[in-house]
Amino acid sequence: MDIDPDTAPLERRLEALGVDGYLIDDDASDPDQRYLSGFSAPDPYQTLITAGETVLLVSGLEYGRARSEATADTVARLSEYDYQDHVAEHGPFEGKIRTIAAFLADHGVGSVAVPRRFPTGTADGLRDHGLSVTVETEGVVAGIRATKTAWEIDQIRATQRANQAAMGRAESLIASADVAADGTLIHDDEPLTSERVKTEIEQTLLEYGCGLDETIVACGADGADPHDRGSGPLEAHEPIVIDIFPRDKETGYFGDMTRTVSHGDPGEEVRRRYEVTREAYEAGLEAVEPGVTGAAVHDVVCDVIEDAGYETLRSDPTTETGFIHSTGHGVGLDIHEEPRLSPAGEELEPGHVVTVEPGIYDPAVGGIRIEDLVVITEDGTENLTDYPVALEATLR
Amino acid sequence: MDIDPDTAPLERRLEALGVDGYLIDDDASDPDQRYLSGFSAPDPYQTLITAGETVLLVSGLEYGRARSEATADTVARLSEYDYQDHVAEHGPFEGKIRTIAAFLADHGVGSVAVPRRFPTGTADGLRDHGLSVTVETEGVVAGIRATKTAWEIDQIRATQRANQAAMGRAESLIASADVAADGTLIHDDEPLTSERVKTEIEQTLLEYGCGLDETIVACGADGADPHDRGSGPLEAHEPIVIDIFPRDKETGYFGDMTRTVSHGDPGEEVRRRYEVTREAYEAGLEAVEPGVTGAAVHDVVCDVIEDAGYETLRSDPTTETGFIHSTGHGVGLDIHEEPRLSPAGEELEPGHVVTVEPGIYDPAVGGIRIEDLVVITEDGTENLTDYPVALEATLR
Repeated sequence: MDIDPDTAPLERRLEALGVDGYLIDDDASDPDQRYLSGFSAPDPYQTLITAGETVLLVSGLEYGRARSEATADTVARLSEYDYQDHVAEHGPFEGKIRTIAAFLADHGVGSVAVPRRFPTGTADGLRDHGLSVTVETEGVVAGIRATKTAWEIDQIRATQRANQAAMGRAESLIASADVAADGTLIHDDEPLTSERVKTEIEQTLLEYGCGLDETIVACGADGADPHDRGSGPLEAHEPIVIDIFPRDKETGYFGDMTRTVSHGDPGEEVRRRYEVTREAYEAGLEAVEPGVTGAAVHDVVCDVIEDAGYETLRSDPTTETGFIHSTGHGVGLDIHEEPRLSPAGEELEPGHVVTVEPGIYDPAVGGIRIEDLVVITEDGTENLTDYPVALEATLR
Repeated sequence: MDIDPDTAPLERRLEALGVDGYLIDDDASDPDQRYLSGFSAPDPYQTLITAGETVLLVSGLEYGRARSEATADTVARLSEYDYQDHVAEHGPFEGKIRTIAAFLADHGVGSVAVPRRFPTGTADGLRDHGLSVTVETEGVVAGIRATKTAWEIDQIRATQRANQAAMGRAESLIASADVAADGTLIHDDEPLTSERVKTEIEQTLLEYGCGLDETIVACGADGADPHDRGSGPLEAHEPIVIDIFPRDKETGYFGDMTRTVSHGDPGEEVRRRYEVTREAYEAGLEAVEPGVTGAAVHDVVCDVIEDAGYETLRSDPTTETGFIHSTGHGVGLDIHEEPRLSPAGEELEPGHVVTVEPGIYDPAVGGIRIEDLVVITEDGTENLTDYPVALEATLR
């Protein structure tokens, strides 16, 4: 990995907290761990950041790979701190604590800040050995991660390319389907279900080295709940929300895109809502630039939707129809990260990668959402998404 | 989900620790959380176990689904404890702490035991509000999870069936390959690589609703390192280790199986090692029964391999060739869980699900491993794996 994190803001925070270092004890499923260590392993390992140095503590099993792959300055292994002896004498739990304590002492660290989700077992264990452990509650590492390097942007762009191929496959399946007498879609003589489209999406992503935990293919009323993943037969003349957020299996970087398509005319009200959503999406994309706040972008999007006569959470915080989520979020090693394009959204900066994804929802009509992924540049944005915006499902 | 966990051992442990309840604050990627809550959500939620009751605390977004899906006795939502007011007044971090504190107070809980990896942010926050938080270091929930119910065994069996289909696809690709002039395998005019076989494995698993994070297709010297996932072109006349450990996307239960196959005769030494590994595997399967320790099963397997003249970690703890791992491990909501078939393996009981997976490794010869997954019954075992054991790759 080639992330090259800028740890200066973290070092300033450590100084403000008056502690010697920042310690993570987690596996690489934690985005902060993966980011700061520049390493990925399935079992927990430790990353220590002090003024000017990043050090990993890994098992002998991971040592060789960590030495060649990790961006950390130094890689230490458990055996250097008598891990096996500690375990033999005190058992695996206390043995590991003593090993970490010895590692910290070796680096002159008597006090650490830790992330909110740092294991209490480790924190209390280290405290028992006289170390000071303080939780860093502001999420300074998430803030650092928000600004991507050119290398990171390339990884996100690559995932988004895979996403485009998967979206093309999904849309083509819907476009080429037949319609049964009851109005449901049929493909190769079998019902075209949400589940089947999701499997084809995932199989396409695999060809690009990407995977996903979940994806949304939600038809009609299902699509009107932004958190419904969708299930069962897809229907003609209904809007179908397809939201794909894959992750590159190698680099860990996500992509994110949504399109809404229909097989056959979904009727005037859906068409009107689609056009309003598209206007809001275009206005949102236009509004994103360095120096603007995420809140201001969200306001622009709400303006378009409210002006067209639909509710938003801004016009009515209790509404269950209309635009019932925020405009977008950061994307990187996590699918939802900073910055937010929401009422609380702060100033956007070059290197931020954000979604712009307005939608209009009503169980009686269905759901509409259109989403692109863009990177903020010195003078505007670059759209990382290259996929047509059209309601009528088309062979791609 | 229909896990129906037996929380009695946990309740006894709470009594011994002198605390009112056991609290988990994690998402469902934590197997203990998923198991005790009988629920799965991507964001952290809280599960509280007290004498006689299991209560979930979830967001409004998850409330409806938790009520219908979770096995917990009661589901509470954050809003019942004034979450929004707490957040408005104290911010998202402290607001959440106050909400959890109010939830605990409402259930008469003033002291909790927590897992080792419980978030320090939550632990310290609750302590600031006068709660006692103690880390439970023995892993009592992992011990409960080791014994599977009939429903759980059915889920593991279903995943293993998907695994068999994927193994069949992988073996068939190797069996039907052509051999290029340089000895590498060719399929459909393209090099048959480890990566390509893995993609086909994963695509097959998807058809069964299963996925995987990693899989092993390791040829020749790659296969001699049990942790090497394998890469690059596969070769004729070499043993190819295929180790697949998929997970059902819906239920979360894993399967696990390994076969070693070769396209073309891999030579006498590989054939001999394969037969010894097969003998060790059969002896291990034969030895597994209730009342026997995992350590005793491991000894039986080591006996066969040592008697054939190969090293084991028992005969030489520093050996880097021969049988260089333990015989097996439990499988369930985690891929590696209790009980262990290793020198530290404790007594096996009905309902335990374990792998039996001896292997013999040497970079100069290649790696061999054969692995089945079995459930321990009242009077022996039931093998959850139904797949031929043969060195010569065959169309399946």
